[in-house]
Amino acid sequence: MEQPGYYLATLRANAPLMQNITNKVAQNIAANVQLAAGASPAMVDNRAESAPFAQLADALSINIGTPDPETAGAMMDAAQVMNDRGCPWVLDPVGVGITGYRRDLAARLVALRPTVIRGNASEILTLVGAEAAASGVDSGDTVEAAEGAARELALRTGKVVAVTGPVDHVTDGTRAILVENGHPLMPKVTALGCALSALVAAFLVRQPPLEATVAALAYYGLAGERAGAGAAGPGSFQVRFLDALHAITPEDLNAGAKVRA
Amino acid sequence: MEQPGYYLATLRANAPLMQNITNKVAQNIAANVQLAAGASPAMVDNRAESAPFAQLADALSINIGTPDPETAGAMMDAAQVMNDRGCPWVLDPVGVGITGYRRDLAARLVALRPTVIRGNASEILTLVGAEAAASGVDSGDTVEAAEGAARELALRTGKVVAVTGPVDHVTDGTRAILVENGHPLMPKVTALGCALSALVAAFLVRQPPLEATVAALAYYGLAGERAGAGAAGPGSFQVRFLDALHAITPEDLNAGAKVRA
Amino acid sequence: MEQPGYYLATLRANAPLMQNITNKVAQNIAANVQLAAGASPAMVDNRAESAPFAQLADALSINIGTPDPETAGAMMDAAQVMNDRGCPWVLDPVGVGITGYRRDLAARLVALRPTVIRGNASEILTLVGAEAAASGVDSGDTVEAAEGAARELALRTGKVVAVTGPVDHVTDGTRAILVENGHPLMPKVTALGCALSALVAAFLVRQPPLEATVAALAYYGLAGERAGAGAAGPGSFQVRFLDALHAITPEDLNAGAKVRA
Repeated sequence: MEQPGYYLATLRANAPLMQNITNKVAQNIAANVQLAAGASPAMVDNRAESAPFAQLADALSINIGTPDPETAGAMMDAAQVMNDRGCPWVLDPVGVGITGYRRDLAARLVALRPTVIRGNASEILTLVGAEAAASGVDSGDTVEAAEGAARELALRTGKVVAVTGPVDHVTDGTRAILVENGHPLMPKVTALGCALSALVAAFLVRQPPLEATVAALAYYGLAGERAGAGAAGPGSFQVRFLDALHAITPEDLNAGAKVRA
Repeated sequence: MEQPGYYLATLRANAPLMQNITNKVAQNIAANVQLAAGASPAMVDNRAESAPFAQLADALSINIGTPDPETAGAMMDAAQVMNDRGCPWVLDPVGVGITGYRRDLAARLVALRPTVIRGNASEILTLVGAEAAASGVDSGDTVEAAEGAARELALRTGKVVAVTGPVDHVTDGTRAILVENGHPLMPKVTALGCALSALVAAFLVRQPPLEATVAALAYYGLAGERAGAGAAGPGSFQVRFLDALHAITPEDLNAGAKVRA
Repeated sequence: MEQPGYYLATLRANAPLMQNITNKVAQNIAANVQLAAGASPAMVDNRAESAPFAQLADALSINIGTPDPETAGAMMDAAQVMNDRGCPWVLDPVGVGITGYRRDLAARLVALRPTVIRGNASEILTLVGAEAAASGVDSGDTVEAAEGAARELALRTGKVVAVTGPVDHVTDGTRAILVENGHPLMPKVTALGCALSALVAAFLVRQPPLEATVAALAYYGLAGERAGAGAAGPGSFQVRFLDALHAITPEDLNAGAKVRA
């Protein structure tokens, strides 16, 4: 297994073209996170362009945070194209438990077997039909409580599932890896989880999904640690976070990643 | 009447679940303001989910800044549910005078009797059918000039109306309270008024509307004062403003609020 | 020809009312850029309001970054009104080459002869039917390679075309002016190009288009230079950039503009 810095260096060398279909809150920060990391983001989320653009993109991120009929159709179309092309895509099931509409949309996307599903603990529990204690889009469950659900979901899709929180849990159903980087101010900035899913997609391009996901999570958490040191609150944290994503080198990441099996 | 800090402490203790149906510009900053204050925001603004989610939310904010058929329908549905459940909701009639479409939409929402209507002076004047001198979404009238309109509107809805500007005016039609906190850079950051309306909604949860609104305005203005001291312009102001919302304690608010009847 | 500062001073004196129909990523930053410069932005992009509001606005900016049927219809309607009224408008053909849908929409807008078309080199090449090497919304071509295309496009519309990049090229088909202000971090912040197009529209109000566009580009690039000096990355750059737009005086602009024929 390569060290995390390898995946960051590869992303920066290739500047992958990213298609993002995300929610209204995350549009700007998700693009800025991908740019700061070294990818080339495009937010192509209408039904007329989604499938044609998916023919060009290196990877796709889908986030169901503020779905409407136009973007929901675009999600299904783009995911199908990525599957046909053998290209990676990430599903972020934001707030999947809050309505039946969202559960149905997420179920249809899960059935297309996303390369990586990244969610908080309550979202992953909901996806496998377990009881969850979410409050809106925030998790009410611990990452530990969702480990079994993550494994079950990964076995069902045959792909990778990442549950993020104070300690992230990544599994392909057989192996499980923990990532301990991060900072308590991260959940105080809106859409940082959404932007992380978009970043994971950029790390997946032509890489093994489990390892690339772990690298993305460690990089993101390390940027959070750097941003948090000296931040006066969530406003300055977000500024410093983008600076840190841009500044962290592959060597920094290898030295700072807190990854364990 | 409780001191303003009481309402901030209550908000933080309860972390209310907020439904926000807001404009495209305000999505990110409104969520970040609610998070920095201590609430749990969700931007659920499509017609399929709006009413079901309103069954779960503690309060609702509606902002007509960039309406379209999908979100306008979601607004009406969610407001009706909040009324049925006896839960509070805020209407922000952004730029209500600019088109007949917007006047009609606002009129239909006002007819549902929002717990609080918060707008600038031109918007409040327009809502009662008076002459207003708005330029787009910016007010061309003084808060003082809209005091009569605010009283009239509050008597018509039987609820609370807040006119914000250099000095804010809050009334339930009988009582009127002025809030003098604030900073001149606040109108130089887009959507800070929109985000304030979302914040007011979070303060309203299980509290008396007039007092809770006054507390929200004082808290917001105090954060503006703190942010403005040392800001180099609207960019650094916004960063410092989110930091200040997060840092201000109930005691700080009691000491810094400039409220008078 | 007036110096660039003249156009900035005029903008600030008049605080023009701007209609912006832009993409989901750029909504907030485009409004903040216009506010920091001294304009009064409104994001009116639905079909019901677009034409009526265009009757009131001093200028219009159109950006095709995340089009959908609702906003695409609003674009056509508003542009037609501005033409009927003799008011200026700007087209930003974001990522025009990525799909046939976008090429068609851009072609219909170009046929309405925008006062200024501002794009990156690949976008301008695509608009005249030349080969372009774009990756998504990022340019894969140099500004120099698009100079002929810019001239051709300007002659076709009878208006102004601006190709932006490390050195910007502005032409009305006869004259060509170069603007050398700018900073390498600018493309690392999402939607700064989109926001620039919105800013150009504000400079055009009752001014000669070529000269006003040059002034807007020099002002924007100068703000980038100020922001870049001392920025730790794209996060702090964006903050400092908005501060600089707000702080730069007409005299600063006259002293710092790097413009040559």
